[in-house]
Amino acid sequence: MSFSSKPQPEANSKVLIFGAGNFGSCLASHLGDSQHDVYMWAREEYIVKYFNLNHRNPTYLTDHEFPSTITAVGPALPDAGLINEVDVLLFAIPTQFLRSTLEILRPSLNINNLPLLIFVNKGIEVGTHALTLEIIADTCGPDIAKLATFISGPSFAKEIVERLPTSVSVASFTEAEADKAANLFHQPHFRCYTGTDPIGIELSGALKNVYAIASGMSDGLGYKNNTRAMIITRGLSEMTVIGSAYGASPLTFLGLAGVGDLFLTCSSSNSRNYTVGYRLGQGEKLDVIMSTLGSVAEGVPTTKGVKKILEELDIRAPIANAVHDVLFNGKDAKTAVRELMELPPSRELELAPTAGGPGHQLLVKLGLAGAEDAPEAVARF
Amino acid sequence: MSFSSKPQPEANSKVLIFGAGNFGSCLASHLGDSQHDVYMWAREEYIVKYFNLNHRNPTYLTDHEFPSTITAVGPALPDAGLINEVDVLLFAIPTQFLRSTLEILRPSLNINNLPLLIFVNKGIEVGTHALTLEIIADTCGPDIAKLATFISGPSFAKEIVERLPTSVSVASFTEAEADKAANLFHQPHFRCYTGTDPIGIELSGALKNVYAIASGMSDGLGYKNNTRAMIITRGLSEMTVIGSAYGASPLTFLGLAGVGDLFLTCSSSNSRNYTVGYRLGQGEKLDVIMSTLGSVAEGVPTTKGVKKILEELDIRAPIANAVHDVLFNGKDAKTAVRELMELPPSRELELAPTAGGPGHQLLVKLGLAGAEDAPEAVARF
Repeated sequence: MSFSSKPQPEANSKVLIFGAGNFGSCLASHLGDSQHDVYMWAREEYIVKYFNLNHRNPTYLTDHEFPSTITAVGPALPDAGLINEVDVLLFAIPTQFLRSTLEILRPSLNINNLPLLIFVNKGIEVGTHALTLEIIADTCGPDIAKLATFISGPSFAKEIVERLPTSVSVASFTEAEADKAANLFHQPHFRCYTGTDPIGIELSGALKNVYAIASGMSDGLGYKNNTRAMIITRGLSEMTVIGSAYGASPLTFLGLAGVGDLFLTCSSSNSRNYTVGYRLGQGEKLDVIMSTLGSVAEGVPTTKGVKKILEELDIRAPIANAVHDVLFNGKDAKTAVRELMELPPSRELELAPTAGGPGHQLLVKLGLAGAEDAPEAVARF
Repeated sequence: MSFSSKPQPEANSKVLIFGAGNFGSCLASHLGDSQHDVYMWAREEYIVKYFNLNHRNPTYLTDHEFPSTITAVGPALPDAGLINEVDVLLFAIPTQFLRSTLEILRPSLNINNLPLLIFVNKGIEVGTHALTLEIIADTCGPDIAKLATFISGPSFAKEIVERLPTSVSVASFTEAEADKAANLFHQPHFRCYTGTDPIGIELSGALKNVYAIASGMSDGLGYKNNTRAMIITRGLSEMTVIGSAYGASPLTFLGLAGVGDLFLTCSSSNSRNYTVGYRLGQGEKLDVIMSTLGSVAEGVPTTKGVKKILEELDIRAPIANAVHDVLFNGKDAKTAVRELMELPPSRELELAPTAGGPGHQLLVKLGLAGAEDAPEAVARF
């Protein structure tokens, strides 16, 4: 039996956003601006109070006045009443907090009266190196996980609240759910493109941060445009090889969540991961950088998780390995780059012939593939 | 019967480069620096004289002192003696002059004593909108065309002569030829990645200039990072759809000649095509821009050729169409962008179901496919 969430959220629908960080806030602003009723949950009481008093977030996007259609809630998690009343639940909390949050919320979720479920967090869970899809399956079961929709793309929050033209990938295993989310978010200045490869979208969002560190490192070492384009493109090739070995479609990496976000993250000093790499390239030590950065650079723990995935799947990904060596094995950036340059010529793209192991296991967990099916069946072009 | 060029050019091999423009010169410098004997043909007598006297190019890369291993020749085209003596012929002349040049050179080419043939020109022939592969097949026959190797990638000439790390795609239908070219060019600071989809490499090189105009237009209108990333990524999606409808592999567009060169060209004011777009975005008229630009922006005629290909193949490519309307139908840039933004949401990537017509015809011409084979067989992953 296949389920679906409530019907298409229309104008003036009710949206509950978990998380009042940079990205949660800007999506609240976007939806509030489109005349939806938005509840934004924050776990800090002073943010809730300050926001409702001033229509401003005291910590993120501080220059932005938010639409009056948004109400901050918290710090207690919303109860089953509100959760069942809303048309949309949007998760914009860090991946590391998602499992515990979903465990608490699970009893409030009713599969026959389910809001549209949207996830915009990125990264791999530390320790398990699980994707968000797997965290949802583990905590809420396969029927709910199959309905989950993921939004990702090249989207600086600051530009979204200024209504500057932005575009995102919207993907779900259940295409009708992705369509609903696209219809909810789509505006001339916020274009939505749908797809059916949430595994690829998730991996893109996590992996790009590793290559943003590499790109920053190259710039920090004083290399120029050709080198940055090489690192971005060879990074994209590694992402595609890793993704397809995992079970994603290689073509997903051509999209907004893939190359689009990679490009944005690798070419802007606004990106924390790029900045970590830049400072490493300039010769600073990681612990000094991390202690003075003032915010989390997700690429650092992600690199550790990616290294494990590379080992498990036996994938060659020299740039990711070089970033890992610089971050965790004390290799200096200059040596790491020189070693990359000295690799022999090779073919441009060699996808692993036996693809899709972990993605296939995830599909089996979701009931979307049989344990006896060939893993290749996972790739969705 | 399948042919091949002379054996792998070793250290100190003889290379003849046609063209002493920006890219021809920097490749001459690169190969000369690697201790090869390089002849660089220029059609202007004063360039030949000046170069041999000063080891400098009077017009391009004027700050660069070239290695003494390079001899300029010309303005007469080299005779059969030199052509048969060299190990490598490298064509770095504009696509619009290639047909007439190859017609003159054809009698000097001996299939049993053929130099490695490398082409680095980009763009579509005006009028015929033929790819270089087709021009080679028309003038030199299929046996020679099958051996042609193409080099393309994110590579500003100025950075190549500074030995800053650079990387390129090297592609041929005859993989052994691509390998030879990669071995010839490869250095730690000039990395070569091989592939077998020259059609995709050629289309990438031509199409990217159309999207560089679009990217410049967006910046000229005052849009920011999110919008530029959208235009690059949606442009890449259009390139992939056009390419696969034509008969290229969609994955080629993930590579250095595809997304790599697209990034570079779309994000640098060093690019002439980007500059044309930027000035259009700022409200200048095309004729004024073209008369003051001081050099050719290949994207302008290419856009006209691409428009014909779009019509013939019945492909939806809204950004390319918008650029065409701004360049040739007097639409203003702001209106064009607003109309693009107002398109409804759509799927992220929809490849045409019946792909490969023109590429298939080209393969038939080269004897690489039968007229009765299905066009789908063209795509080479």
